[in-house]
Amino acid sequence: MGLDIGGSTTRGVLFRGGQAVRHSRAPSANIQNVSPEAAAAALREVFRGLAAEPSVPVLAGAGGVDTPADAARLEALIRSVSGVSSEVPVTAVHDTRLILAAGGHTTGIAVIAGTGSVAWGIDCTGCERRAGGWGYLLGDEGSGYWLGRETVRAVLRANQREPDAAPDPFTRAVLLHTGVSSAVDLIAAFHDRPERSFWASLSRTVVEYAAGGDDTALDLTHRAADELHALVMMVAEHLDGPLPVVLGGGLARTPVGDRLKELLAESDVSDVTVLDQEPVLGAPVLAQAVWG
Amino acid sequence: MGLDIGGSTTRGVLFRGGQAVRHSRAPSANIQNVSPEAAAAALREVFRGLAAEPSVPVLAGAGGVDTPADAARLEALIRSVSGVSSEVPVTAVHDTRLILAAGGHTTGIAVIAGTGSVAWGIDCTGCERRAGGWGYLLGDEGSGYWLGRETVRAVLRANQREPDAAPDPFTRAVLLHTGVSSAVDLIAAFHDRPERSFWASLSRTVVEYAAGGDDTALDLTHRAADELHALVMMVAEHLDGPLPVVLGGGLARTPVGDRLKELLAESDVSDVTVLDQEPVLGAPVLAQAVWG
Repeated sequence: MGLDIGGSTTRGVLFRGGQAVRHSRAPSANIQNVSPEAAAAALREVFRGLAAEPSVPVLAGAGGVDTPADAARLEALIRSVSGVSSEVPVTAVHDTRLILAAGGHTTGIAVIAGTGSVAWGIDCTGCERRAGGWGYLLGDEGSGYWLGRETVRAVLRANQREPDAAPDPFTRAVLLHTGVSSAVDLIAAFHDRPERSFWASLSRTVVEYAAGGDDTALDLTHRAADELHALVMMVAEHLDGPLPVVLGGGLARTPVGDRLKELLAESDVSDVTVLDQEPVLGAPVLAQAVWG
Repeated sequence: MGLDIGGSTTRGVLFRGGQAVRHSRAPSANIQNVSPEAAAAALREVFRGLAAEPSVPVLAGAGGVDTPADAARLEALIRSVSGVSSEVPVTAVHDTRLILAAGGHTTGIAVIAGTGSVAWGIDCTGCERRAGGWGYLLGDEGSGYWLGRETVRAVLRANQREPDAAPDPFTRAVLLHTGVSSAVDLIAAFHDRPERSFWASLSRTVVEYAAGGDDTALDLTHRAADELHALVMMVAEHLDGPLPVVLGGGLARTPVGDRLKELLAESDVSDVTVLDQEPVLGAPVLAQAVWG
């Protein structure tokens, strides 16, 4: 069984001979986002949907599995609700590992540009490195939330420079998306609405205007790509290369991902896969790497 | 009457002939930090302590008074609990105005480097400018919270570069202050503890180590001063100068404030006052400027 425990959804797939034979889906079981009770309920729902034998091992990828203790806690939770036999392996890993595997690789660098961001890599010596993934308050550079926040900051900065200027089309689109009438109102709105996904959704407006050639939006998408590129290179410099790169997350197939591919090409990283399938489908490849 | 409505304390002073004759203090009445009920209760407590006649006008400085609507809301709240006669003025202004006045000026630039940060100025033509003050999620560059967060980021960055290196004395002090055992645990700790004041208090460790010559701590304090300097210059460039600068907030009398004074001197701003009295004592000077 493969599980992908995301911030909004938990996806489960039952594999037989490497082929997906049953799919299941439930709300988030990520204990960084929901209570342990809600996480357990979501996992129960996924396992009910998959209806697997107790002898089927479980490989789960989840955001926030940063330390062996995080992994052990999630593994214990999965064991307690899954009905998996005690001698059968249950392994929890950071979700970047699923991304890399879904891209068809067992060594390489996975970068996620979703609501959050992170880069992780593993080389053929088994050496691993991670960069970013510090969460929305400390980093997540180049992520959807980061891009939304930087957009708000860009609008505020322009307003600070010229408080009496009429808003340009991009600024009007940002104000419309966020439901406020003036730039200065964004300060209160941003602090009053704590949902990260709302501000991450502002990145849709940015990539739309970037695609249309708006200078501010283009600058923002380029800065996001620069940040993601820096994460990838930070991982790459510590690993035995050259390594393939797999790019996942909601921003992968946008001007941010396009720009990141350009930057990687300039850094002589040309083997770049933009993920076009669900990360959970990487579970068989990953299982091979993890369990042999 | 003068009020200084801060994020943790509300200070009230009754003046007679420009002299403070009675002091009063209560918890925060800042509606950005506490409920309207708690704010009303705190204001009632301050007014009870001052026991002023209904004919005494009220001048209140508060963080978060960003728009005329913010001012009107706070003025209405004060009126509703103070017992001030309806024909007597009640005026709410951004708390930077109190800082400037407490520094003895009616024109000039006030910069606050406390838990948050902001610069505001007014010139002799009555033109006003503000820079920063976007709150902890969007900016507050150079503030105590910002400095705490950048410290956490610096520790994480060093750990990302050399995951297996033993922590240096400054890193050990940061881990001790925050009660975690390793750098990577800071990620969860930072997101789990939402109180800004806790992370702002980490700036005390930074200024202590900066004073002791620690390179990382010095770099952090210099970066904070750079950010505050940028806020001041952003205000200055739009106003008729030269203008005096008044520096307030918990970081004013630390290596951050010292460095900021150096940077301002390099920018030919030499009339800098580091506030050594409570901002609320600026109320008589400010009253003269506001009410004539």
